[in-house]
Amino acid sequence: MSKLYLEDLSVGQRFESRSHLVEVEAIKAFARSFDPQPFHLDEKSAKDTFFGGLAASGWHTAAMTMLLIVESVPLAGGVIGSGGELSWPRPTRPGDRLHVVSEVLAVTPSRSKPDRGMAEMRITTLNQNDEPVQVFSPKVVVMRRGGWQPTQR
Amino acid sequence: MSKLYLEDLSVGQRFESRSHLVEVEAIKAFARSFDPQPFHLDEKSAKDTFFGGLAASGWHTAAMTMLLIVESVPLAGGVIGSGGELSWPRPTRPGDRLHVVSEVLAVTPSRSKPDRGMAEMRITTLNQNDEPVQVFSPKVVVMRRGGWQPTQR
Repeated sequence: MSKLYLEDLSVGQRFESRSHLVEVEAIKAFARSFDPQPFHLDEKSAKDTFFGGLAASGWHTAAMTMLLIVESVPLAGGVIGSGGELSWPRPTRPGDRLHVVSEVLAVTPSRSKPDRGMAEMRITTLNQNDEPVQVFSPKVVVMRRGGWQPTQR
Repeated sequence: MSKLYLEDLSVGQRFESRSHLVEVEAIKAFARSFDPQPFHLDEKSAKDTFFGGLAASGWHTAAMTMLLIVESVPLAGGVIGSGGELSWPRPTRPGDRLHVVSEVLAVTPSRSKPDRGMAEMRITTLNQNDEPVQVFSPKVVVMRRGGWQPTQR
């Protein structure tokens, strides 16, 4: 994939990732490290909880989404966000196949820094039934063509 | 810690976590799995990037934050969020010591579901210099005392 600069982005542009299988063991391993709650750790304990069964940590869904973004949105200088609105409309379950659709909502050159700009994006993570499991709306830093010099940091 | 229900929460209530050391190897391991970009993988490659040196993935900061929340905010039924506004004002660096301050901003019983309610929170992740590396403002589902029955799901 050739790398994209701010000049290569346009409103409405879409990027689609491959699909990624969510393994039950990956759900439990992530939970042990970062979100050790019964509904993310063990099928049996998960039954009598809010989720009614094993579900991935929302942060695991977010992390798998990032992997799929890095693979599918080829920005020069990398994919660098400063945050955004995040929502998890439904849980990710063992055996789900996730894929990510990234859409460009706005493209704005920086007023103060001539080497870069900002893209507003909507990044939707969908399961195998095309139901959204996560929607993230970040502002992403994007370099301008020929603009990036490490020393200008 | 005794578990807290909606009735136990009040506006202005604060929870503070232990501090957590961010190991360089943990930064790289998380990046290999979920955010394989040069500035998260390798000190040398990170030098000439936006970050000017190795930095943790924002999603790694978010995941470490969740671990500290689970340990320090003892909600009955667990800590369950549906999303919120997320920002990373500055990067997490190798050797940082993170801790998390969770504040209750609003407490609202559900109109339709008598067994639960919603707490708006502001969850700030700070480094050893008390500089914020992440601010997350979620709405969290909280059970009411005696209200939670798995069959009411």
